[in-house]
Amino acid sequence: METFKATRISIIAERLIEKKITDLLETAGATGYSIYEGGGQGEGAFHPAHGPSIIDGMGIVKIEVILSDRSVAETIAQRVMTEYLKDHSGVIYLHEVEVLRPEKF
Amino acid sequence: METFKATRISIIAERLIEKKITDLLETAGATGYSIYEGGGQGEGAFHPAHGPSIIDGMGIVKIEVILSDRSVAETIAQRVMTEYLKDHSGVIYLHEVEVLRPEKF
Amino acid sequence: METFKATRISIIAERLIEKKITDLLETAGATGYSIYEGGGQGEGAFHPAHGPSIIDGMGIVKIEVILSDRSVAETIAQRVMTEYLKDHSGVIYLHEVEVLRPEKF
Repeated sequence: METFKATRISIIAERLIEKKITDLLETAGATGYSIYEGGGQGEGAFHPAHGPSIIDGMGIVKIEVILSDRSVAETIAQRVMTEYLKDHSGVIYLHEVEVLRPEKF
Repeated sequence: METFKATRISIIAERLIEKKITDLLETAGATGYSIYEGGGQGEGAFHPAHGPSIIDGMGIVKIEVILSDRSVAETIAQRVMTEYLKDHSGVIYLHEVEVLRPEKF
Repeated sequence: METFKATRISIIAERLIEKKITDLLETAGATGYSIYEGGGQGEGAFHPAHGPSIIDGMGIVKIEVILSDRSVAETIAQRVMTEYLKDHSGVIYLHEVEVLRPEKF
């Protein structure tokens, strides 16, 4: 099976800034993304993963996006970091993955 | 610590076809998998990650499976793509991970 | 863009032992972690990903933690495995990622 290299960006951020981040992804060249609700702890903030968090909209989201072009991925990661995570807790990490249909990213 | 190479397959698909994909995984040699609900955007379809999606069962799922045998992983990825994602939006990607108990995969 | 190597640990475990695992993470040197609810199948146990699982607290969690120091990551992975997963179903895997702010991990 032939696979094609791509870069996955994972962004873990407060739910409050989810919309800002996905707006940035859409304008910066991402063809799609997925979002998962979660909880967690980091730098003093605690959000339980379940229970009240489902009701009241607290907590974090993990946003994942895959890009065929590494330089586009880097630009997006840098922009999210600079524009939205400087003043909020959050994490961005990248890693290489293999995709089957490179034309989709 | 000794670790062992394995391949993780991530499948992001419409929830409607979750059961078909997990049935395929079970018959194709996966010893287990995990499933996460999410939302996202791709190729024109938008599913919010939270709110109504939790209630009405809309949205996407991410299905993750780890296999010790790369060739089994490739066969599964190819089958899911060919049998279920040709006519639905969805993403499959693979990447190498390290596991501690290779006999479990 | 400059990135820095780090190790991501993913722990998929029964929700019943989530608190024990996160307590271990907090005492073992993790500066943060995130948690996602899910379902899945493995070794005979089936937990649906959605529906009743959201209500009654059944199911699994995926706990993710990133560490700059590979040896700390290995120690944590080994401890979670030995102390909590020997008697429960569950999976731990590691893989290398790139982070933008290494001082956070």
